[in-house]
Amino acid sequence: MFIAKKNIIAGRNPVIEALKQHLAIDKILISKKATGNNITEIKTLAKENNIPVQYVPVEKINALTNIKHKGIIAFKSAIRYQNLQQVIDFILEKGDTPLFLILDGITDVRNIGAIARTAVCCGAQAIIIPDKGVGALNEDAVKTSAGALEMIHICRVNSLMKAVDELHLNGIKVFASEMTANTKLFNLNFQEPCAIVMGSEDKGIYPALMKICDETFHIPMANNFESLNVSVATGMILYEAMKQRIN
Amino acid sequence: MFIAKKNIIAGRNPVIEALKQHLAIDKILISKKATGNNITEIKTLAKENNIPVQYVPVEKINALTNIKHKGIIAFKSAIRYQNLQQVIDFILEKGDTPLFLILDGITDVRNIGAIARTAVCCGAQAIIIPDKGVGALNEDAVKTSAGALEMIHICRVNSLMKAVDELHLNGIKVFASEMTANTKLFNLNFQEPCAIVMGSEDKGIYPALMKICDETFHIPMANNFESLNVSVATGMILYEAMKQRIN
Repeated sequence: MFIAKKNIIAGRNPVIEALKQHLAIDKILISKKATGNNITEIKTLAKENNIPVQYVPVEKINALTNIKHKGIIAFKSAIRYQNLQQVIDFILEKGDTPLFLILDGITDVRNIGAIARTAVCCGAQAIIIPDKGVGALNEDAVKTSAGALEMIHICRVNSLMKAVDELHLNGIKVFASEMTANTKLFNLNFQEPCAIVMGSEDKGIYPALMKICDETFHIPMANNFESLNVSVATGMILYEAMKQRIN
Repeated sequence: MFIAKKNIIAGRNPVIEALKQHLAIDKILISKKATGNNITEIKTLAKENNIPVQYVPVEKINALTNIKHKGIIAFKSAIRYQNLQQVIDFILEKGDTPLFLILDGITDVRNIGAIARTAVCCGAQAIIIPDKGVGALNEDAVKTSAGALEMIHICRVNSLMKAVDELHLNGIKVFASEMTANTKLFNLNFQEPCAIVMGSEDKGIYPALMKICDETFHIPMANNFESLNVSVATGMILYEAMKQRIN
């Protein structure tokens, strides 16, 4: 993948400045050999802002930029990620009933863009994604989302399990789609605060994550051909949720 | 676009043979200067089989194949198109209630593939497409559909207006999605035999076609952000239809 230089912030002080100014940052690469006080400061700031840090050979950084980087670069993001608890507080203070999506293993950022588009149409307020395995929500993703990625809260968390715990502590139920579940989609109660876990088409939902969900359900199918695209399946689920909330 | 030679049938007798054997053919190109009895025979057979014929300069054909073509080539199709009336008869004889899709202006064959995938899952039995403006339903489309294009009837018609007339004559109601319509999707009655017209995201449904539809409806949206992907919108509509038919 070619990364345009304009997406890269290189050097210790520029990265510290970007972190202090709360710029939208996707991830930080630190050379394995880099040391010094400002490295510690960067790690602390990154942790505070929930930005993943990777430790790499300096050659990897050299290959990505020809600007003097002193062992550190940061990738700017097209999207500003938000803190889950802050988003929950914001939604509740507005008097809205949370309707969130949790994307487990959906790594294609264009898929995430397409899902965001549907989510905004259907009144979902936030999308929760893990900070590992998902590509940067770049201009491509924003374009696929028709701008929707900028109209919905995107919470990037370092553990979906912990995110579900956090939702539970806030009284938000978590539903997960599972082909073998007994409950049909339209028998779920979407009028209560809830989040829906969507798994990838090939791997489904991570079993440990599935276990801590409050309810599993399936989308009834007319044929044995159970092959819905994840973005279409999300559309059906959010349509059902929206319909229940309108009525 | 590079067209692999294996998709091309060249020459008068091979094309006549293919037509007589009812091979799946996408379209036929005839040189503007081609004459003779077998040209007349090809035109007649093409008309009988509802295969579009284009008259082109011989240079166009020369550029597509280096096999001796005598002014005629045919493009094989990955999909066998079916006659609308025969499909209706087949569905009714089976005792099923028709649920069809009519695609107006949806030209991207991968979009059609994605829609077919959802249609099969939701129990729709046929997709009606126009014979102009839509690319060949090639291997790409079949792949995007995850095989669904081979599990659903595809009717290619030379006029969607006439197709709607034919549906009406068979007692099948035609619904069209229109943002400004008063009726909400979930207030339609999908338990009766029906077909749904889906327009393209940019142009919507052709106004004259909209006029002869029995009912227009809109998918209620939680936000003013009315930007559903056509394949997701089709998913929501077919989910609603399937749900009504299951209950």
